[in-house]
Amino acid sequence: MDTWQSYLQTNRQRFVQELMELLRIPSISTDSAYRQQVLQCAEKLTQYLQQAGAEKVEIFPTAGHPIVYAEKHIGNHLPTVLVYGHYDVQPVDPVELWHHDPFDPIIRNERIYARGASDDKGQLFMHVKALELMVQTQSLPVNIKFIIEGEEEIGSPHLADFVAQHHDLLKADVVLVSDTAMISLEQPSIDVGVRGLAYVQVELTGPDHDLHSGVYGGAVPNPATILCQMIASLHDAHHRVNIPGFYADVEEVSAEERQLLAKAPFDLEAFKRETGITEVWGEEGYTVRERIGIRPTLEVNGIWSGYTGEGAKTVLPAKAYAKISCRLVPHQDHQKIVRLLTDHLKQIAPACVRVEVKTLHGGDPYVLPITHPAYQAAAKAMQTTLGKAPVPVRGGGSIPITAVFQQVLGIHTVFLGFGLDNDNLHAPNEKFDLANFYKGIETIPYFHQYFAEAIRLDSPRSSK
Amino acid sequence: MDTWQSYLQTNRQRFVQELMELLRIPSISTDSAYRQQVLQCAEKLTQYLQQAGAEKVEIFPTAGHPIVYAEKHIGNHLPTVLVYGHYDVQPVDPVELWHHDPFDPIIRNERIYARGASDDKGQLFMHVKALELMVQTQSLPVNIKFIIEGEEEIGSPHLADFVAQHHDLLKADVVLVSDTAMISLEQPSIDVGVRGLAYVQVELTGPDHDLHSGVYGGAVPNPATILCQMIASLHDAHHRVNIPGFYADVEEVSAEERQLLAKAPFDLEAFKRETGITEVWGEEGYTVRERIGIRPTLEVNGIWSGYTGEGAKTVLPAKAYAKISCRLVPHQDHQKIVRLLTDHLKQIAPACVRVEVKTLHGGDPYVLPITHPAYQAAAKAMQTTLGKAPVPVRGGGSIPITAVFQQVLGIHTVFLGFGLDNDNLHAPNEKFDLANFYKGIETIPYFHQYFAEAIRLDSPRSSK
Repeated sequence: MDTWQSYLQTNRQRFVQELMELLRIPSISTDSAYRQQVLQCAEKLTQYLQQAGAEKVEIFPTAGHPIVYAEKHIGNHLPTVLVYGHYDVQPVDPVELWHHDPFDPIIRNERIYARGASDDKGQLFMHVKALELMVQTQSLPVNIKFIIEGEEEIGSPHLADFVAQHHDLLKADVVLVSDTAMISLEQPSIDVGVRGLAYVQVELTGPDHDLHSGVYGGAVPNPATILCQMIASLHDAHHRVNIPGFYADVEEVSAEERQLLAKAPFDLEAFKRETGITEVWGEEGYTVRERIGIRPTLEVNGIWSGYTGEGAKTVLPAKAYAKISCRLVPHQDHQKIVRLLTDHLKQIAPACVRVEVKTLHGGDPYVLPITHPAYQAAAKAMQTTLGKAPVPVRGGGSIPITAVFQQVLGIHTVFLGFGLDNDNLHAPNEKFDLANFYKGIETIPYFHQYFAEAIRLDSPRSSK
Repeated sequence: MDTWQSYLQTNRQRFVQELMELLRIPSISTDSAYRQQVLQCAEKLTQYLQQAGAEKVEIFPTAGHPIVYAEKHIGNHLPTVLVYGHYDVQPVDPVELWHHDPFDPIIRNERIYARGASDDKGQLFMHVKALELMVQTQSLPVNIKFIIEGEEEIGSPHLADFVAQHHDLLKADVVLVSDTAMISLEQPSIDVGVRGLAYVQVELTGPDHDLHSGVYGGAVPNPATILCQMIASLHDAHHRVNIPGFYADVEEVSAEERQLLAKAPFDLEAFKRETGITEVWGEEGYTVRERIGIRPTLEVNGIWSGYTGEGAKTVLPAKAYAKISCRLVPHQDHQKIVRLLTDHLKQIAPACVRVEVKTLHGGDPYVLPITHPAYQAAAKAMQTTLGKAPVPVRGGGSIPITAVFQQVLGIHTVFLGFGLDNDNLHAPNEKFDLANFYKGIETIPYFHQYFAEAIRLDSPRSSK
């Protein structure tokens, strides 16, 4: 609608300034030193929600970081969209690789650089501003609810309980999330699936204190060496995960769907440039997109042992640690995979070391059928504002809460992501293109409009 | 000789008091805050050397801490023994684990407790006092030279150059060192070998920046995973080092020598208790002592990559690092092994990662043949004063300067160590048993006497 366009045009500079205020707050959820700043970020968000026209804005405390709730109800006869997002961010290490202070946002080449610029403050803020736009132009086509958590980056440990305990409050027809990427504004895409996650930490103990590698080396089990041997055995020569039963529940995607997914353009050279690699890597028999989208993986996210400072220290370490995570696809169960992985690591550890495995994080995979009215509405909205129909894509990341929404609230989730793969999520110099930020704010109202129309045409509540 | 015994008996209380003065000086070489105290310790040592009857006592400055030289020349027809030691000490961290001030020595249960008590001020001081004893009783059987450095604990960065530049000054028939341990006064032993060292740091690069393990995981080479695979391949199933050519120059120790080395008592349960391990580990076909003493090893001294903080971070790291060192035995050359290791790591790294290898540290192994007159003299001296012939032992550590003495001066080194394995070297509550201190002072003159006799019986200079 023209009024949406002109409201956006008039106010978008202010929207960016407001987003920058949000980005200034270092809401790092994993580090308890930032506890106060995480709360401060939640409070700032409530101000913006109220200013945008939301009602019943409330901060719900949890055993961890709080959850922000808000709603704008305009009529019982209209469908309700539950917008989910998160206001917490990843740590900034290695901070020396940032070109500027991660919490002092700057705009360069029409991109906003800061931790959280894309993941997820920037994308979340599109929904706050889209609400303002629809309220101010008196054109809100649906009821909207917001549930915005502060623990997404640490695995949403308290969200599932909160959802279960606030079943009525969160009642809705669909969940709408902007926390994923699209291919580009020229080639829009919609993530129809996210992978699940099973994340563990392994601790190996050899001697009970660090030893001199000369006096003892060669006769004592070195936990660093043995951990490497264990990790090396977790992939076979075809780069398949080498844990018995790992693939047992994996959905074999049909040839038709693989063909549809293959329609998303893929530029190998661009992928190499973007990641800085010289050669791709991965499971034999699958394309790069398939390896990321429809196949499970196992990655070492961190490893450490012994002396890691400057120069040489001849230590034979007592301990070796690794953080290992698997991405999961339908119909793998994250608890089952954690069990398989834990048992396997304990089984392959030689008797000369002690092994402990701790579960850090987990969530199930999720896929939205492209026949769902929410997918159709999202696709139509993008077609309207971007001039081209999006292609469906299976994303590689994990948003475990989508499986929770489906299991507890019985509703599907649609991803309307405006990030780009080169946004440097979880990495130094995270950014969000302003063009994407603006297009997101412009597209969201169309989604609500088309979704309301689809539900009205449909039989009541059929979308559940 | 009776006069030696009685001189020692009369003066040993004073010797201990003098040693305590030396131990009061915190000559920590690695910490530049102690630069002045290191120099002060060198000066104190020159006083003691002069007092003991040494001549040409001199402090030679180096680019680091100074070297103390002294000599007592009594005749060109006599052999010359070059005594090597060091007056610098290790840091005292963790200082809270000391039962008293590390630089305020105390005597408890006939042991002297202080940093440097055994390593190496106490053992070095035995030679100063043995000189005094022989000079005062007019019974010095050889010419003696002293070279005492202040940088042993930081890898003797300036000693090799000094030795090369003072070839004539240091001309001698053998080097005598008391900086190692023996099994006990009841079961004397002599270290006949130290292992060499080849220490490198490996850096692997996959992507050129840290990536999101969901968005990219499964399709991009993970340098942590690949480094583990590379390290895992460096040992075979028999725990032998799996690098082509690694064992090519390794001296196969004869069955006779292995039998002799096996005479040193070994208590497996005590070894497990001491290290806190449940099972030993190492190259098949060799005993624990042999794995440490006569076989080369490869150990991971440190490894790091990705996220190593608290909790979960779903990063696919750009970099992975490891510190890897090999202990070497005769006749391995540390530069050749560094080359082999470097080339091998580069060769086994898959094309999808970049690999860099940096040399950090190196030194050649050294073994004194037990047929050498210096070994024979040391063994006979111990037999005389301790009543039992010592067993030869191969130590696992490295004292690279011994190889320098051999290569630059062309002479062998004999270790006449009176420390014990439980002296807490490099650890809190370092100590030296007074009985060992006295026995050391008593044994050293016999070494000189027997060595002089052996050389006289021998053809001139044959011991070189």
